[in-house]
Amino acid sequence: MNWSVIDDVIKNALLEDIPVEDITTVNTINKDSISTVDLISKEDGIIAGLEVFGHVFVLLGNVCSEFYVNDGTQVVKGQLIGRIKGNTRNILSGERTALNFLQRMSGIATLTRRYVQELEGTGARLLDTRKTTPNLRLLEKYAVKVGGGYNHRYSLSDGIMLKDNHISAAGGIKNAVDSVRDNSSFVRKIEVETETIEQVYEALEAKADIIMLDNMNIETMKKAVKIINKKALTEASGNITLENIKKVAATGVDYISVGAITHSYKILDLSIKNLLNI
Amino acid sequence: MNWSVIDDVIKNALLEDIPVEDITTVNTINKDSISTVDLISKEDGIIAGLEVFGHVFVLLGNVCSEFYVNDGTQVVKGQLIGRIKGNTRNILSGERTALNFLQRMSGIATLTRRYVQELEGTGARLLDTRKTTPNLRLLEKYAVKVGGGYNHRYSLSDGIMLKDNHISAAGGIKNAVDSVRDNSSFVRKIEVETETIEQVYEALEAKADIIMLDNMNIETMKKAVKIINKKALTEASGNITLENIKKVAATGVDYISVGAITHSYKILDLSIKNLLNI
Amino acid sequence: MNWSVIDDVIKNALLEDIPVEDITTVNTINKDSISTVDLISKEDGIIAGLEVFGHVFVLLGNVCSEFYVNDGTQVVKGQLIGRIKGNTRNILSGERTALNFLQRMSGIATLTRRYVQELEGTGARLLDTRKTTPNLRLLEKYAVKVGGGYNHRYSLSDGIMLKDNHISAAGGIKNAVDSVRDNSSFVRKIEVETETIEQVYEALEAKADIIMLDNMNIETMKKAVKIINKKALTEASGNITLENIKKVAATGVDYISVGAITHSYKILDLSIKNLLNI
Amino acid sequence: MNWSVIDDVIKNALLEDIPVEDITTVNTINKDSISTVDLISKEDGIIAGLEVFGHVFVLLGNVCSEFYVNDGTQVVKGQLIGRIKGNTRNILSGERTALNFLQRMSGIATLTRRYVQELEGTGARLLDTRKTTPNLRLLEKYAVKVGGGYNHRYSLSDGIMLKDNHISAAGGIKNAVDSVRDNSSFVRKIEVETETIEQVYEALEAKADIIMLDNMNIETMKKAVKIINKKALTEASGNITLENIKKVAATGVDYISVGAITHSYKILDLSIKNLLNI
Amino acid sequence: MNWSVIDDVIKNALLEDIPVEDITTVNTINKDSISTVDLISKEDGIIAGLEVFGHVFVLLGNVCSEFYVNDGTQVVKGQLIGRIKGNTRNILSGERTALNFLQRMSGIATLTRRYVQELEGTGARLLDTRKTTPNLRLLEKYAVKVGGGYNHRYSLSDGIMLKDNHISAAGGIKNAVDSVRDNSSFVRKIEVETETIEQVYEALEAKADIIMLDNMNIETMKKAVKIINKKALTEASGNITLENIKKVAATGVDYISVGAITHSYKILDLSIKNLLNI
Amino acid sequence: MNWSVIDDVIKNALLEDIPVEDITTVNTINKDSISTVDLISKEDGIIAGLEVFGHVFVLLGNVCSEFYVNDGTQVVKGQLIGRIKGNTRNILSGERTALNFLQRMSGIATLTRRYVQELEGTGARLLDTRKTTPNLRLLEKYAVKVGGGYNHRYSLSDGIMLKDNHISAAGGIKNAVDSVRDNSSFVRKIEVETETIEQVYEALEAKADIIMLDNMNIETMKKAVKIINKKALTEASGNITLENIKKVAATGVDYISVGAITHSYKILDLSIKNLLNI
Repeated sequence: MNWSVIDDVIKNALLEDIPVEDITTVNTINKDSISTVDLISKEDGIIAGLEVFGHVFVLLGNVCSEFYVNDGTQVVKGQLIGRIKGNTRNILSGERTALNFLQRMSGIATLTRRYVQELEGTGARLLDTRKTTPNLRLLEKYAVKVGGGYNHRYSLSDGIMLKDNHISAAGGIKNAVDSVRDNSSFVRKIEVETETIEQVYEALEAKADIIMLDNMNIETMKKAVKIINKKALTEASGNITLENIKKVAATGVDYISVGAITHSYKILDLSIKNLLNI
Repeated sequence: MNWSVIDDVIKNALLEDIPVEDITTVNTINKDSISTVDLISKEDGIIAGLEVFGHVFVLLGNVCSEFYVNDGTQVVKGQLIGRIKGNTRNILSGERTALNFLQRMSGIATLTRRYVQELEGTGARLLDTRKTTPNLRLLEKYAVKVGGGYNHRYSLSDGIMLKDNHISAAGGIKNAVDSVRDNSSFVRKIEVETETIEQVYEALEAKADIIMLDNMNIETMKKAVKIINKKALTEASGNITLENIKKVAATGVDYISVGAITHSYKILDLSIKNLLNI
Repeated sequence: MNWSVIDDVIKNALLEDIPVEDITTVNTINKDSISTVDLISKEDGIIAGLEVFGHVFVLLGNVCSEFYVNDGTQVVKGQLIGRIKGNTRNILSGERTALNFLQRMSGIATLTRRYVQELEGTGARLLDTRKTTPNLRLLEKYAVKVGGGYNHRYSLSDGIMLKDNHISAAGGIKNAVDSVRDNSSFVRKIEVETETIEQVYEALEAKADIIMLDNMNIETMKKAVKIINKKALTEASGNITLENIKKVAATGVDYISVGAITHSYKILDLSIKNLLNI
Repeated sequence: MNWSVIDDVIKNALLEDIPVEDITTVNTINKDSISTVDLISKEDGIIAGLEVFGHVFVLLGNVCSEFYVNDGTQVVKGQLIGRIKGNTRNILSGERTALNFLQRMSGIATLTRRYVQELEGTGARLLDTRKTTPNLRLLEKYAVKVGGGYNHRYSLSDGIMLKDNHISAAGGIKNAVDSVRDNSSFVRKIEVETETIEQVYEALEAKADIIMLDNMNIETMKKAVKIINKKALTEASGNITLENIKKVAATGVDYISVGAITHSYKILDLSIKNLLNI
Repeated sequence: MNWSVIDDVIKNALLEDIPVEDITTVNTINKDSISTVDLISKEDGIIAGLEVFGHVFVLLGNVCSEFYVNDGTQVVKGQLIGRIKGNTRNILSGERTALNFLQRMSGIATLTRRYVQELEGTGARLLDTRKTTPNLRLLEKYAVKVGGGYNHRYSLSDGIMLKDNHISAAGGIKNAVDSVRDNSSFVRKIEVETETIEQVYEALEAKADIIMLDNMNIETMKKAVKIINKKALTEASGNITLENIKKVAATGVDYISVGAITHSYKILDLSIKNLLNI
Repeated sequence: MNWSVIDDVIKNALLEDIPVEDITTVNTINKDSISTVDLISKEDGIIAGLEVFGHVFVLLGNVCSEFYVNDGTQVVKGQLIGRIKGNTRNILSGERTALNFLQRMSGIATLTRRYVQELEGTGARLLDTRKTTPNLRLLEKYAVKVGGGYNHRYSLSDGIMLKDNHISAAGGIKNAVDSVRDNSSFVRKIEVETETIEQVYEALEAKADIIMLDNMNIETMKKAVKIINKKALTEASGNITLENIKKVAATGVDYISVGAITHSYKILDLSIKNLLNI
């Protein structure tokens, strides 16, 4: 990841939480006080974002972190994850911001892992979407990978997806694919969204690289996968839940995209404790 | 809200999603095409963030939005919320970013409302926390208010909260309160976190303006409220859920803070549909 | 103070003074030359801003500063305040910017101290205002504290002050206070500006936390203080000078705010001298 | 002036004063309320910065200003300077920031005018220095011109001034001048600081374009001016006050620089009054 | 193109050229003067960047431009390209910056067109590279398209190219391709750089989507194209000139990339003339 | 040079090329791999920009560069210029950006040197213009100096040049010069553009500091130089080429400005090779 971008995100987050000064801390804690604190998990889950957590304190200064697990580790309730050591004021002032990042990223990784576990033994891979938190996409897509998922396109500029409105404006799938192929970089694959078997045939004929099977029922999806027959990659999309994802995978699709892993996760509960003045 | 700040947030979000251009759209949709689309709710909930949604398109240019509900309105599945009209390219390119804001803010308002409903008939008010998404605090705290909640301090710079580490470093509650009162602006109230009845007594003696009852059981909390007897405002905090918040309120506390409303909500499902070329 | 904010201010100031390069210095001073210079006071006063002064050179690079006094020290004409050592080019290029900060901040601290001395023996405290230099409020409010003054609210977002226009728009003091109390964070105190005894009574009734006595004569002020009788904090404001502040304090008000300490001070004259090539 | 730069300065100033929202105003003033207010002078002086004042409200939106005087006009106590009309919330929220700019700039112009008046009838012109407020140099140098003064160099990058340290490092005035002339743009004049008659001779010989007479007594200065005899421009500098500037001018120098006009002025007292809801 | 990005580039360019004010213009041209000027070509070439040119004046304010040709039009020496009308000061102050953009972009389009003309009648397409001017890639890649060329990847983040160092570190082409395919978004094609026929076979076997034929002689390239036989796209690269590009195209490659079109073009000479005061 | 400015330029360039991550490199190269690579010249020319090249890697982190030549050195094809050592990922990710700067700056220095060589033995000096790449002026003007040229004004704010439109608006050369001299800083010289002998006489009479001889033929230029007779500096401008610059110099002008050195150079071909894993 480009840390120059991430450090700007962190710097802004610190500015949001400490626009002037941490009035409680500077008026109670000695300027030169040094402490250690423990980072502990309060529930089971997957950790993601340890480096981001550490950078919060690096940017505040005079605090360093060591971790006893890695991003991707399954941790359990009560587990000691790391220890932060340094200037007490900066530890107390940065704690909330550091946790706000780490808990969200770990929440995403944890939910992603649950979906991924459902896919075990199938050939399908879990994909994220562009339904990410504004200005945190870099971190959230990273967390999806940590959880075992795969990344779809990063932005509207680096991947092509022809949806119904593009297709009807261009006068059909064939025209839309040709026009985009002709006018965009040859390094990009072209994905076409289909909702019916007829559209699947058209997308195949237009030589789409990826065919999205959008909101199809299981039967139709199975049929579509058979028709496509590996001549294009397939992506199932729409109303996928932890309950039905296994069935969707059983249709033989290559990828299944789930918005919920970045838009409706709950955080992983972590806490900073046991401040020891040293 | 300071729209100069929010517009910068939106501008960055658009840049994140369209660093170069929307390659799909510019290669299929005519530059001068004009359309309308409908903004529709796909589930029941509380709407929050309509102005932010509208600004996304204002910043892209040549698109305007009209809304048939207001922030705070309870909408139902299938309800038409608004109509967006303008340059088709900008509608399609901005759709995801606009929804990413609106769905998250509405998700927060919707979850907040559920907590607030539990408090109906009690004297307690729901508070948010600083457990907000980095760099979106302004929008998330606004959404909490839309949902019927109240805002706690905005940052470490505009509110004082003495936690255990501050108190022990300062040599007790009395010293901590005195030191902070003496060195910070006289416009700020001072809140003290307490976990035991003994600490409640100390906080009262120190003339804390607000006393947080942290992770206390219902019995202790009741006792604490009685002791405080309106000589300070009270805030219950820690492990509050939809299941137990009513009981917490019954203790007579003035405020109850819940982190989940900003850190573990699910989005409100909304969609943009029915593109009509005009 | 949040040094990330201050360093941006300093960085911009250096860019303002050295947009391209210091053409005089780079063409006369050897790139690797190392020197020391002395920071000397040319008049009596209070020093404020030594860390800011030092950061100017830290940001230019390869220069460090040591100081023989602290912020708040009363220095006398001719006194050696510190010594700067490092790359000669950076010393010469940063000198003006570093002094521009230090002299202004020390000027504020010096004038503040004079007002504070007038208050000695009275119970009143000196307050600053929002009449600060655009974009330097953080540094100027810090300098006020160094001089012995106290800070009023930092911005329109972290303190509430109901002035005549707010009050008349809201339909009276009671309505205004209630409306603001209900819609803003419970961590904020509410201040009401009053000009007459009648308004003082209304403010008291509305349970204002702070009552400003604005442009009242000494007699009225005395009466107001008596009426308020510690049920709210009191702030005297308007036309306060070094000449009359003692009399104002004698009325028994808690705080007295003076705009002049940040808008009409003169700098403390300091100079950098005795460059020694080493 | 480059308004893109100034608008960024204003935008930051508004952000400093309204990081979140003006909590007092949004909770008491109706969103669509429209008003007019008067801008009135509370003392005699020179107005400078009306356009900057107006831009504050332009950036907040829906407020426009009309002025009955121009920058440079001598106004008197009680005079109506302009009228601001528009959204009441934005008028109240922007008032302080707008005045903070206008009062400071007018303060500089007013003090500058006093110095300039002392120079009437002499051939000397008043110069500013680089002793300006960090990040406000553009506005302060403009205010000096409004007051009748002249601008010295803008930064270390657009003017050359050889001081004692440069000269001794370069091995004398001749070497310093030659080196700088050879290595910098031919559009720049070269100024040499001199403290003795001997140095004046050397500067002349080195063909300096401008010779600064630094901290010389009146007799020496007179002698120096005679020796230079219009072969270079002359600038008097150091310890110039309102009391002695006329005598300095009488020596025949072309320019006299005074740091105080930008570092030790008092603001011009202006106020916004008579809010009328319309 | 994302105009928010481009406007920031333009704004910075104007700030670079007018950090304070255009001292020549503001002191000679009346503030309210209105003029028209003509934009004329001084040589034959392809125009690119008219909208960027126009935005320079939009950002300065009160100037509008109309154009009589479009981006991509072949213009001839002496041809009237457009007319700019508005505030005379802004026309004169923005002229150089506007031309600096337009002349460079048109220079790139003009050189690109010459290469493209050499490819007429062959099946090959011209590609650009990442050898663009720092911070102007968006504009330069646009100019390449205007000239008839095609864009390669935009950045290191949106396209995959395995060069010798990546391949040897990964332990051969097969391993490198597999590792990248497994860990990056499935929307990206994978390009492999080859220098020998042996590597071409390996790339084919690894199912590379695009095979770069780097610095191969014509004979080898022909052989490689035959072996690949449309099972992957082919890109010729290295030492391509106007002289040899036709021969390279004759080998049957799909794409030919040329760095010179963005790194070693000459500007198209354009001028602004015939200022008419109106 | 102000490295704070340059580092921002470099940081943006890296962000342009690596908005998310270098997907090829992070998926093939080990995170902790360390290598050296050689920087080699592929053609003869003048090197400029080594420090900028080095800063690219400093900003990426964990890479340092050592150079065996200096800016200004004439290098030959095949010559080893420097060695870069450090984290392999950062070397590979930064290579293109670092070269994009160095090759362009060296291209400018190389072309400049060719013009300068033509001037050897004449008294004339080569000048650059404002026809530089938007946002890279600082680096390009530096490269001109490295090549042996001289810098003209940096921007519209630090140098005065009266062109025909300014002159006619002001009512003749005399009025224009007087107006500008009276209203701008006394540290600036005033240049007047002339196209005829008559204008030269007027410029002399107006005491212009520099007289530009614009688009004059050799005979007229000679005559102009004679008339001016060192009473002003002279600058020849317009249609200067490598072919005719010697003849222009022979007229006796002091300076000759050439736009092509910054707007129509070709890069110096350099490459990074011989990666050795260590």
